[in-house]
Amino acid sequence: MRMSELAAETEVPVATIKFYLREGLVPPGELVSATRAEYSPGHVERIRLIRALIEGAGVPIEGVRRVVTAIDRPPESRLDLLGVAQDAINGPAPGVVARDVVTEAVRRLGWSPCDPGGLAHLQGALDTADRAGFAVTSDRLLAYAQAMERVAVVDLDDLADDPRASTPAGALAHVAVGTVVTDAVLVALRRLAQGQESERRFAGDATLASAPGRA
Amino acid sequence: MRMSELAAETEVPVATIKFYLREGLVPPGELVSATRAEYSPGHVERIRLIRALIEGAGVPIEGVRRVVTAIDRPPESRLDLLGVAQDAINGPAPGVVARDVVTEAVRRLGWSPCDPGGLAHLQGALDTADRAGFAVTSDRLLAYAQAMERVAVVDLDDLADDPRASTPAGALAHVAVGTVVTDAVLVALRRLAQGQESERRFAGDATLASAPGRA
Repeated sequence: MRMSELAAETEVPVATIKFYLREGLVPPGELVSATRAEYSPGHVERIRLIRALIEGAGVPIEGVRRVVTAIDRPPESRLDLLGVAQDAINGPAPGVVARDVVTEAVRRLGWSPCDPGGLAHLQGALDTADRAGFAVTSDRLLAYAQAMERVAVVDLDDLADDPRASTPAGALAHVAVGTVVTDAVLVALRRLAQGQESERRFAGDATLASAPGRA
Repeated sequence: MRMSELAAETEVPVATIKFYLREGLVPPGELVSATRAEYSPGHVERIRLIRALIEGAGVPIEGVRRVVTAIDRPPESRLDLLGVAQDAINGPAPGVVARDVVTEAVRRLGWSPCDPGGLAHLQGALDTADRAGFAVTSDRLLAYAQAMERVAVVDLDDLADDPRASTPAGALAHVAVGTVVTDAVLVALRRLAQGQESERRFAGDATLASAPGRA
């Protein structure tokens, strides 16, 4: 298809597609004459993936670049694949090393040695919460991690069920994009579940005045 | 304290604090002379909260404004409080109504009527995943929601344990900021849990070649 058809098919303006081409996020079309390039269904898929990362998950251009680079050169090993996909979506790990609360939670979970980059991201998130005055205790981190263990089982089942994930590139796209777009689903569900739990606890409570700790 | 001391205490430049004052995110100091205002520990706390939202959780200025406005005029009812806090951190709900997969999951969960805005956010996140080629099934949504129910219990326990949350403003700050900064903790834990689950499943697998579905 021509560039104009690619734009129509993806509902992405030509100028934006040209930007993706210049940035190397989308591979060039096949030149069929000096002035015309032909684009394939693979281009449609790649542009949809980029839009999902940017619009859906708020991934910055550098993150999109990491994801498409990884998809274009995926590792052969399924075990390495997850790490590469996660590095692509996570970006550079903060320069922190997992400390007490994290190492204790990992020990209590019985987790085997974790990816140091992933632990650094976790420690970074905990440090941010701490600076905001919301230090997370080891017990709370453990409970969160146990909930995320359930999520991860669903995630890996879903990967196993996706026929597109039978190639390394497909599996990498699945892990990177599938994880990042469903982060927002989990966040939305957390809000709704808080609402349910709040109603369960406070439905009879007209005001805060009935809470024992009221100042 | 003076402006310069406020900047030193919060490690936020004077120019940034002045921007927050102009934007109404931080209340004005108390004028002690024609040219000098005095700032209080409440100002330090407010600036830390703003930094946590912006730097820690990537909340845009409009979101920060919604959160501080809600904190300055919190609802009296504990039940309303959660909704107000969530509206502040979520921002405007997308113009979509919950459809089949969502309504079925909510029914199977036995959840009482949910906040329509929260459901719209969930439907919006699912639509994005769908457009990216990762449609979430009702079974998968149910499993994610059950994991988030556990998270919500921990969240509400944590709210109950926080002495600062005994006032409406404190409880609102807790729900809004405490939720948004720990979203990143959950996301980081999800990545680590995926790594553990992947290792459990594929540790023996040298390459994708051993996966039955290889194309």
